[in-house]
Amino acid sequence: MPRVGVIGGGQLARMMVPEALELGIEIRVLAEAEGAPASIAATAVGDYRDVDAVLSFAADVDVVTFDHEHVPQHVLRALEDSGTVVRPGPDALLYAQDKILMRRRLQELGLPVPEWTTASSPEDLERFLADHGGSAVVKTPRGGYDGKGVRVVRAAADVADWFAALDEDGNGGELLVEELVAFRRELAQLVARRPSGQIEAWPVVETIQRDGVCAEVLAPAPASAGRVADVAAQIAVDVAEGLGVTGVLAVELFETDDDRLLVNELAMRPHNSGHWTQNGSTTSQFEQHVRAVLDLPLGATGTVAPWSVMVNVLGGPTDGSALVDHYPAMLDRHPTAKMHAYGKSPRPGRKLGHVNVAGEELDQVVYEARAAAAFFTTP
Amino acid sequence: MPRVGVIGGGQLARMMVPEALELGIEIRVLAEAEGAPASIAATAVGDYRDVDAVLSFAADVDVVTFDHEHVPQHVLRALEDSGTVVRPGPDALLYAQDKILMRRRLQELGLPVPEWTTASSPEDLERFLADHGGSAVVKTPRGGYDGKGVRVVRAAADVADWFAALDEDGNGGELLVEELVAFRRELAQLVARRPSGQIEAWPVVETIQRDGVCAEVLAPAPASAGRVADVAAQIAVDVAEGLGVTGVLAVELFETDDDRLLVNELAMRPHNSGHWTQNGSTTSQFEQHVRAVLDLPLGATGTVAPWSVMVNVLGGPTDGSALVDHYPAMLDRHPTAKMHAYGKSPRPGRKLGHVNVAGEELDQVVYEARAAAAFFTTP
Repeated sequence: MPRVGVIGGGQLARMMVPEALELGIEIRVLAEAEGAPASIAATAVGDYRDVDAVLSFAADVDVVTFDHEHVPQHVLRALEDSGTVVRPGPDALLYAQDKILMRRRLQELGLPVPEWTTASSPEDLERFLADHGGSAVVKTPRGGYDGKGVRVVRAAADVADWFAALDEDGNGGELLVEELVAFRRELAQLVARRPSGQIEAWPVVETIQRDGVCAEVLAPAPASAGRVADVAAQIAVDVAEGLGVTGVLAVELFETDDDRLLVNELAMRPHNSGHWTQNGSTTSQFEQHVRAVLDLPLGATGTVAPWSVMVNVLGGPTDGSALVDHYPAMLDRHPTAKMHAYGKSPRPGRKLGHVNVAGEELDQVVYEARAAAAFFTTP
Repeated sequence: MPRVGVIGGGQLARMMVPEALELGIEIRVLAEAEGAPASIAATAVGDYRDVDAVLSFAADVDVVTFDHEHVPQHVLRALEDSGTVVRPGPDALLYAQDKILMRRRLQELGLPVPEWTTASSPEDLERFLADHGGSAVVKTPRGGYDGKGVRVVRAAADVADWFAALDEDGNGGELLVEELVAFRRELAQLVARRPSGQIEAWPVVETIQRDGVCAEVLAPAPASAGRVADVAAQIAVDVAEGLGVTGVLAVELFETDDDRLLVNELAMRPHNSGHWTQNGSTTSQFEQHVRAVLDLPLGATGTVAPWSVMVNVLGGPTDGSALVDHYPAMLDRHPTAKMHAYGKSPRPGRKLGHVNVAGEELDQVVYEARAAAAFFTTP
């Protein structure tokens, strides 16, 4: 029986477990700590930056994949040098780890991206601002997620702390500076790619962010049939092939006011924008990821209902209650809502779970999913 | 977080694990042996007939339920006496454990059953045969499953060994004797019932048996809309309420040549006839069972496609290969097929897994599911 090893014990690893179990594939997790969301499959607890811990975990699996993109390149290279199959591989992951390298590579590939530059000094940034109507988005190239490491700025002083950190770092670091894109909405295109080249795409979805964090996903994106769907899928296929991605790839896109699609961010793993597939597609992104990293043929990505909506449960109750305390009321009112909980304690802003609903009428599906998720938020 | 304890580590317990995990419900399994199908959640290994082993396992869970119906009544009573919540409870399980008691009780409830009697001697059986055209079905009241403990007989000599065993037993035991029902097809009606009384039914399905073992399930049963569906659901509701069942209940039915529905067997747990719900219904039988035994509101039981078909993988390859060795070919040809493997080694007749397919056209869905499952049978 092939064994998949997952580095990182968060909710993405957790949600791979049921899919691997049903397929009869053994899955093992290297978790950061006891009691991590994926602890049911954790065979080791250790730091993903520790070469010895990672090599020891990987010695007993057939392929290593990831719950997150934060494993350092030197650890990934050591894994490969030890003979471990790593999917996605370090060459691909590099572009999910460093946003400047990602922007540069996507531009080389001719893919549509916002206007961008790098800034190693406030002067660089001021120059870009002057050329772009006085506003820009500044990102730290590494380590950002869920809106962290991203700021909308009107002046270099807005990121004075980041420039100061660059100076202290002394490594000649740079910030990524991008135009503030005038967009109508945000989309995400999810695909999976096998090492042997097969790629399958799910329908493009609309993602609704709040405070930089994914709050809701509508699948497929309303009014996307035709050109939008085709272009989004083609962009993601080009990214997957151009960067040599294996496993699931999420491409976050801006749909601009003037009808273009621009690549915003990439994730090389199952992604929040694909959670709807658990109840809305013939093949969930978690099953597909397991299949892809084992180089097994990919599953069908059609939908089981005209509309699927996912609403994140963020933060959770503030009155000391647990999510399950609200199940009796929520499940009673929303029998079609599918709850997915990550085994985490409530904390402001924390992703604790999500609710999926699939159905015939978009308005009704959105209502059900929002109303169900609202049971977990103390007003 | 509530904890569900499952006695028995077979595939039914295994398939509860993903559903509990997604709901954020902790699930613990008392397995018969190391490496059992549900071993990922096994917190103890022990004999379900051993009161101490069972009590010790149960001490740390909120509710005990089952992978099978074989836990002896004295163990179930000891569990209840210790304050453990047992669902389904011993009073209900009794009727799944003893077919004579089941027949008697269903008849008291006015439910349609085949003509039957008990036989403690060959003479009793011969009398029934003489009154029923010379044939009958004889069943051992306890311990039978998958066609074991069931024989079609033309003479008392056909079950001479069972009568001899009754004599040796010396407990005044009896065999169950039933008319050989002339049936058009076999159906199964699955429902779930909460302790508080809520009941939800899935559509009635057609089950196709080979050698007394479930081979295929068509959901819903073709041409069942209307009277057949209504009567089947009503029978199962009456059984669930009449016997006080909690959790999933499967009622196996004969659809007779003269258009009646007769109750054949009962199972008080997720059942092979309900595996299609994993990919064909808004709520799978495994999720519903977990919800029901925790007295949580039940999920919607609608279908996600007009037709779902399940085909069992029985026996598996005889050439020494494992199921996964056939995944590349099978998954490549059948991208809509959903594989469920139980983590067991191939052995003649053994249930190793099943394939579910859902879709628009029954012929096509049947073809896909059969063709996919056939990859695992060496010709």
